[in-house]
Order: sequence, then structure tokens, then C-alpha cells
Amino acid sequence: MGATLNVCITCRAGLAPVEGVLCPGAKLHAALCEAPAPEGVEIRPVECLSACRSGATIALTGPGRWSYIHGPLSVADSGAILDFAAAYAATADGIVPWRERPALFRKHVIARLPPAGDLA
Amino acid sequence: MGATLNVCITCRAGLAPVEGVLCPGAKLHAALCEAPAPEGVEIRPVECLSACRSGATIALTGPGRWSYIHGPLSVADSGAILDFAAAYAATADGIVPWRERPALFRKHVIARLPPAGDLA
Repeated sequence: MGATLNVCITCRAGLAPVEGVLCPGAKLHAALCEAPAPEGVEIRPVECLSACRSGATIALTGPGRWSYIHGPLSVADSGAILDFAAAYAATADGIVPWRERPALFRKHVIARLPPAGDLA
Repeated sequence: MGATLNVCITCRAGLAPVEGVLCPGAKLHAALCEAPAPEGVEIRPVECLSACRSGATIALTGPGRWSYIHGPLSVADSGAILDFAAAYAATADGIVPWRERPALFRKHVIARLPPAGDLA
């Protein structure tokens, strides 16, 4: 089963809204959608991940996997986010080994959630 | 289907560990388990929700529901946590209406995650 890269498209990242200008979350989503998604990854826009103090924010989820919420991130991180989503999709449990995890995702973690059911 | 109240049992809440003394997360879990769990709620200990800067931390999850991660919380909040878990369990989608949400859970939200599948 595939992985989902949820992107908060309402995130202002602490900035005041400007009419006619995409908010940072929507900009990040647009940047992530510029190239085809990595194999096994679906990019899903979400209205508010409620991590407004740590935006822009993404969350990696998938059936049977730990979920990981990361931020603050920006358009400049798009390539790294797609690479990391591919690494996440390649795991069975959602846990990318620590030594294979880029510093960006070691440091910019907001929270993680266990999958449903019994934990190993 | 029921709801799960995940409790991070490894949370130090910024404190140095003391030998023979439960960490704040384990204390919170113990306090939550003192009374029977609310109807429809299973209390599940989890090792690290990776929200170490905002601990102690709990996460409400359930099939088909939005997940909510809350913190910082402490033993003093145990009763409020159980009441809120019961309110969460009574929803179909995990979204407790804003006006029914205690200030504690309006303010102390770390992030939320959408359920799998299509969003309404």
C-alpha cells in the first residue's frame, strides 16, 4: 500500500495574508506538484494540520505505518521532501532509519503517531 | 468503532531523568489509568510521540477520524483529558465542535492529521 504526503495548504507560516498571493502552505503544495510524485506517493492537500506555529507543515501517512508530521518547511525544501517521501514509502512501518534520515527531517519533526493496532 | 487515547510514556517534558522516578509521560499514563477508561476509549501507552518540546503529550486517534495531538499536558489535566477523549469518541469524524472544546484543548494542540481516504 502506498504512502500519502499530506500538505497543509492553509498555512500562513506566521505571515499576514496578502490578497492575490498564495500562502506559504499553498506555495509549498504547488512546488511539490510541479514534478510527478515519487513512486508509491500520493500528494494530498489538507486544510489545516493545526501546527500553525511550525508551518509550513507536511505529514507522511500510510496504512500500517507510523505517521510523521514535519515543519517548519518551505518551497526551498521541496526536493528534499519528495526524496524523503519516497524513502518513507519504501518502508513497511513508516520509520526511515535514523542514519538515513536527512538532518532536515531529524530536526524539523513536530510529532509522530503510531499506526492502529498492536505495536511491535 | 472506538477511539484510542495514545499516551507518550517516555516524555521527560524537558526535565532531567531521575533514577527510580517515573518520567512525566509515564506519570500521566499512570494517572489516566487510575479510573476505568471512558466508554469507547482505549488507553494505549506509546514510546515517544516525537513531540518532546511540547510534552507531556497525548494523541487521540480512531478509524475514519481526524487524529489530534495535544500537549503540553500533565497529571493535573488527567480528568480533562479523559472527558475530552470521551467527547472525541462520541464523534464520527474526530472533530469535537470548537464551542464544545475546552480551552485547554483549543490552545494545547500540537497538530492534527486527516483520516485516510477522501476528505469531505
